[in-house]
Amino acid sequence: MARIVAVDVVDLRFPTSRHLDGSDAMNPDPDYSAAYVVLHTDDGPDGHGFAFTIGRGNDVQAAGIRALTPYLMGRDVDDLDGLYHELVGDSQLRWLGPEKGVMHMAIGAVVNAAWDLAARRAGRPLWKLLADLAPERIVDLVDWRYLSDALTRGEALAILRRAQPGRAEREALLRADGYPAYTTSPGWLGYGDEKVRRLAKQAVADGFTQIKLKVGADLDDDVRRMRIAREAVGPDVRMAIDANQRWDVDEAVRWVERLREFDPYWVEEPTSPDDVLGHAAIRRACAPVRVATGEHVANRVVFKQLLQAGAIDVLQLDAARVGGVNENIAILLLAAKFGVPVCPHAGGVGLCELVQHLAMFDFVAVSGDLAGRVIEYVDHLHEHFVDPVVVRGGRYRAPTAPGFSAQLHPQILRRFRYPDGPEWRLER
Amino acid sequence: MARIVAVDVVDLRFPTSRHLDGSDAMNPDPDYSAAYVVLHTDDGPDGHGFAFTIGRGNDVQAAGIRALTPYLMGRDVDDLDGLYHELVGDSQLRWLGPEKGVMHMAIGAVVNAAWDLAARRAGRPLWKLLADLAPERIVDLVDWRYLSDALTRGEALAILRRAQPGRAEREALLRADGYPAYTTSPGWLGYGDEKVRRLAKQAVADGFTQIKLKVGADLDDDVRRMRIAREAVGPDVRMAIDANQRWDVDEAVRWVERLREFDPYWVEEPTSPDDVLGHAAIRRACAPVRVATGEHVANRVVFKQLLQAGAIDVLQLDAARVGGVNENIAILLLAAKFGVPVCPHAGGVGLCELVQHLAMFDFVAVSGDLAGRVIEYVDHLHEHFVDPVVVRGGRYRAPTAPGFSAQLHPQILRRFRYPDGPEWRLER
Repeated sequence: MARIVAVDVVDLRFPTSRHLDGSDAMNPDPDYSAAYVVLHTDDGPDGHGFAFTIGRGNDVQAAGIRALTPYLMGRDVDDLDGLYHELVGDSQLRWLGPEKGVMHMAIGAVVNAAWDLAARRAGRPLWKLLADLAPERIVDLVDWRYLSDALTRGEALAILRRAQPGRAEREALLRADGYPAYTTSPGWLGYGDEKVRRLAKQAVADGFTQIKLKVGADLDDDVRRMRIAREAVGPDVRMAIDANQRWDVDEAVRWVERLREFDPYWVEEPTSPDDVLGHAAIRRACAPVRVATGEHVANRVVFKQLLQAGAIDVLQLDAARVGGVNENIAILLLAAKFGVPVCPHAGGVGLCELVQHLAMFDFVAVSGDLAGRVIEYVDHLHEHFVDPVVVRGGRYRAPTAPGFSAQLHPQILRRFRYPDGPEWRLER
Repeated sequence: MARIVAVDVVDLRFPTSRHLDGSDAMNPDPDYSAAYVVLHTDDGPDGHGFAFTIGRGNDVQAAGIRALTPYLMGRDVDDLDGLYHELVGDSQLRWLGPEKGVMHMAIGAVVNAAWDLAARRAGRPLWKLLADLAPERIVDLVDWRYLSDALTRGEALAILRRAQPGRAEREALLRADGYPAYTTSPGWLGYGDEKVRRLAKQAVADGFTQIKLKVGADLDDDVRRMRIAREAVGPDVRMAIDANQRWDVDEAVRWVERLREFDPYWVEEPTSPDDVLGHAAIRRACAPVRVATGEHVANRVVFKQLLQAGAIDVLQLDAARVGGVNENIAILLLAAKFGVPVCPHAGGVGLCELVQHLAMFDFVAVSGDLAGRVIEYVDHLHEHFVDPVVVRGGRYRAPTAPGFSAQLHPQILRRFRYPDGPEWRLER
């Protein structure tokens, strides 16, 4: 029997703001960061996980993870199934959310680290570990509280059982062809026109059939940039736009109306991620332009309502915002029930590495479908990971290494540690 | 000119779980806690504020407040108006919410401390300071983003101007008669039947016309306790019930149906505070029993939707959950627009002390109304405050001391400091 014998938490920050990588209408100068956690065991592999932030406050996020250490120390690594339920059910910690913000993201980080550990011990990539679970086992991973008016445990079981017959065939397809991706790399708001044009052309040359542009700061700029990008990619490549929560409801409707001539495929985060009714109003007014959101949606209860209200065409789950793999399974099941495609949010630090597993599990064992589904891809910081994503021909290749692809190289933990790692000491 | 020259943050915990004070269906053993902040100035009074938690994680909440120190140090104390806007607008910190959880409560704590400081410097209690502001000044305190589909700045101005003529008369009434209260003291779930009966009778003898009972853990227990309480208080005293988020939607409807014979005045927190559509469904099914929520509602965007969806009959703002006084002004204005009475959540550590100022400001300068309005009162921990609430004859008396009534006695900061204060060292 192996136990968790030490928990390391590191405040890592990458100075991405120096080149305006990741800049958008709400986030002009992010320093992509990770509050990174390692579950050390006394026998066999360790487990790795993290919460993603964009700089200031990453120390608070790390403190949130450290506060969970007493729940982890000494635990049997083959008995981590109850961890998520125990953490989200802790009545005192719950007050700090409930199920939102720093404490919920901290729970997500350690739950994901426990899944990384479980997959390594099983010698399988996480997507495969999950896809091989029996439907009864999968529904037990979900916290069913607050869901029953939209999805019952029985309905979820039926969804999973319906997907069982085709599992092997879809797994083979996935291993052969990968999973479709789209790229955000051309579209950061801080990039000049020529860089947008060049990167948009490059994206098409690289095999992507969808790109995304950041919008929402200045309408004239957006018109000019969308024209440039549309000319660069031609009429058949999908162009999504992303406002990063910049607008009120009426403003979103007016702005999208003005950009309609460039045939936007979806409008992402048009307003507050908490505004279910606002998204529903925007969707009614902007159709047929699709409405997408999710990267800042705090938990399954808000996703439930976005689906109940018919507020979204595209559900963008995030691997490091909600309560880890367990809550994302609930979200995948909700999306399958309502027939809404899941197109995960990625980028940042390691989000591509994580979400690919969730999307591939969904394809093999939940929705069984690729229609309308793409995983975001941003070409940042992958070199720092031990098992980085492989995107070729506009598709994510199925990971084969055991685990959740969450591990950073050990020297990265030293180099980018904030504020005392060499990358930051040089800065001062 | 005075400046902020030091910021102290203290992790304070009170061992309330020893006597099951504050116990309910979701929170069986809270240790009422405060992440407490003092803004020290180089001339004149200091400012005091806090976030309220129920124990574990209060260290994370304190870390959240400490992370805001750089935004506070050196600031001119007469120029704190922009503080709220600057903090909620900080793009990197915003990622940790946005506007929810630990980081948002931290912002609320320092914004409230800044208001405490401003009111002390003005030599007036906060409710009076706010009530004397010009309507144009009040609307400038609000972050209008995401609100315009429900309430515009112009509509808010009209609400405030409509209330102007009666301000002096209502202020005199408030000073003479106080503001109505209700008491939760009889109803904690951990209390035995005899204690419930005795405290319910005592509440009526003390002049309260409304009490509240915790429910939701066991239906038979709830029936028995409500029968005892109804017999004790008679048919004319209002009895609210509070499930503390324990139920799914259908479960809430069935439970309330069974308790209907005891004439519950409102059902509070029947389900997740994030579930706008769920509350709306419960309200439709449970009428005429009122639906109340708010103590865990993360921000003005969720309150906006609860009002837009017709999901609540009673809005229970909390002084230490959202982004401080500024965001609560937005919430009071939204409630006034939709004609929904505000009955603030209180209890905990110092929440009674804070919310009385907001409710009194509302009465004098916003809604101008007391109909259906009561402030929660719980008789806990007031002795630790320098300017504790005074509740007599079932009514809060208007505070007269300068400030926001947020200051704890200095010896309390030493005695209850966690984990090294004497109250906790004895525990070990």
